[in-house]
Amino acid sequence: MTVDKLVLCLSVPDGIHEWLEAFHRMAPGLDVRPWPARPDEGGRFYVAAWNPPDGFFSRLGRPRAVFVLGAGIDRFLKRGDLPPADVPLVRLLDAGMARQMADYALAGVLRFQRNLDLYEEQQRQGLWRPQPARSADGLRVTVLGLGRIGSVVASTLAGLGYQVSGWNRGGALIPGVSCRSGMEALDALLAETDVLINVLPSTPATRGLLDRRRLSLLAPGAGLVNCGRGDQMDLDALVSLLDAGHLRGALLDVFPTEPLAADNPWWRHPKLRITPHVAAVTLPEPAARQVADGIACFEAGGTAAGTVDRGRGY
Amino acid sequence: MTVDKLVLCLSVPDGIHEWLEAFHRMAPGLDVRPWPARPDEGGRFYVAAWNPPDGFFSRLGRPRAVFVLGAGIDRFLKRGDLPPADVPLVRLLDAGMARQMADYALAGVLRFQRNLDLYEEQQRQGLWRPQPARSADGLRVTVLGLGRIGSVVASTLAGLGYQVSGWNRGGALIPGVSCRSGMEALDALLAETDVLINVLPSTPATRGLLDRRRLSLLAPGAGLVNCGRGDQMDLDALVSLLDAGHLRGALLDVFPTEPLAADNPWWRHPKLRITPHVAAVTLPEPAARQVADGIACFEAGGTAAGTVDRGRGY
Repeated sequence: MTVDKLVLCLSVPDGIHEWLEAFHRMAPGLDVRPWPARPDEGGRFYVAAWNPPDGFFSRLGRPRAVFVLGAGIDRFLKRGDLPPADVPLVRLLDAGMARQMADYALAGVLRFQRNLDLYEEQQRQGLWRPQPARSADGLRVTVLGLGRIGSVVASTLAGLGYQVSGWNRGGALIPGVSCRSGMEALDALLAETDVLINVLPSTPATRGLLDRRRLSLLAPGAGLVNCGRGDQMDLDALVSLLDAGHLRGALLDVFPTEPLAADNPWWRHPKLRITPHVAAVTLPEPAARQVADGIACFEAGGTAAGTVDRGRGY
Repeated sequence: MTVDKLVLCLSVPDGIHEWLEAFHRMAPGLDVRPWPARPDEGGRFYVAAWNPPDGFFSRLGRPRAVFVLGAGIDRFLKRGDLPPADVPLVRLLDAGMARQMADYALAGVLRFQRNLDLYEEQQRQGLWRPQPARSADGLRVTVLGLGRIGSVVASTLAGLGYQVSGWNRGGALIPGVSCRSGMEALDALLAETDVLINVLPSTPATRGLLDRRRLSLLAPGAGLVNCGRGDQMDLDALVSLLDAGHLRGALLDVFPTEPLAADNPWWRHPKLRITPHVAAVTLPEPAARQVADGIACFEAGGTAAGTVDRGRGY
């Protein structure tokens, strides 16, 4: 399948040269036009974009399809200038992000399992005091979200010997992972969780999911890793559970408002470790390959993998 | 093979109840006598010990063999009261330690790969600034020491997709790991190393191995994980290479003198992360199983796995 001479309008916030090179390697025949270059008047074209400027879509006309250069499309769905609902919106599936997310989650799990948070605090005090170690097979890790990314996170951890459970809306089957679904199962699962990893997409069903009540259900001393979305977790509730000693600590990559303001008190909380939304970044090469494959699929009359149900939110 | 009614004199610095239970489960017929209980006058007995008190061996008589409840025997070999050279000295082989060491090494690798050290510093400043990510397959990790522990560390990392090289004295063959040996190979290898993991035993040949010259050979911006022994690395040289910006940071579990004094300036160096010799701790259950198997082997006229060449040091 060739995508020769088709026009792709590209808008990325940074790294434009790397993106152009990646498209050149992955789809040499594609006519890639970086914003603000426009498609030909009345011509067929596709869009690939990440956080494009306000009004971006109004100035382009009607594309054949829009590829979102990320896994989460919640911000896209809130835009006022989106093309009509019959223009397919396609999100990236994995594109190198699953493996990055698994690495990040693993760093969080090891932080709590190996007491690195406690040793960090002891280092500040010049205190040499070994803490009881926990082995991987004694640590109950729960992964929320079992799509293309969550399933890789869960199976990577299971492969390293952790006791891994997974939860999502629809149910899943992953070798070595105890999978559950449904809200009642979630409550029970939280009570048996030593480290909770959230990689859910932000949808009407997941916003506010990790509220005070559910966070309180976690096993005493549990640690958290949030690399899903910031609107899913009540951070004030989290902080009060950390301060009360019910929870141990959290590694947070996502926040209700990003970037986090320099004077936000969360930066200075000793039990929070903060990273600036970097758990999984879009890698140009696999992303460009996925866009090229998707365009080829649409051109052949099909529907590209990753096409979003706008109502469901992923 | 039964070890019924044989006497084992046991000395451990703490957790004696856990040890007695482990021996009871693994070798119920063994007559385990915790120090200061003594063997019968003139009777056959074995010793299992970790950091026993000074003069411990002088007060016991001649054991059939001594099991050291750890992987490193350098401190044992420096004792003045060791039984004569024809009494076998046996160290633990793995006993659950390899997996712990792999976890610890992985935590160090992820720290540097995922910029967690930089984000820690940025968090102190309230600074939201994504840093360029490196993928696992682009990170060159070198493991020094490829015995029972090092080989598990190397193959765990290779299984996660890192570019892993291994080095030891005698040469080794590990699937997925590029193995080298000899001093010349070490110099060349250091120059191609982004993260160096040291799990070598402390021997006359490895003491001082990571001196200023060799540390300077590491690739610019390299990170280090030392979970071998503290006498192998020149920490003053390390600190000056960190301060000069040639090296990125280090996760250190072992030190020339332990415990590290509260006023030691290393505690406060921002590019050092310090843990109190906990990378791999002896787990009573697998250790007791290995001691019981070793005793059975000696009783059958054989030599237990892990018997040390005192001259070589491991």
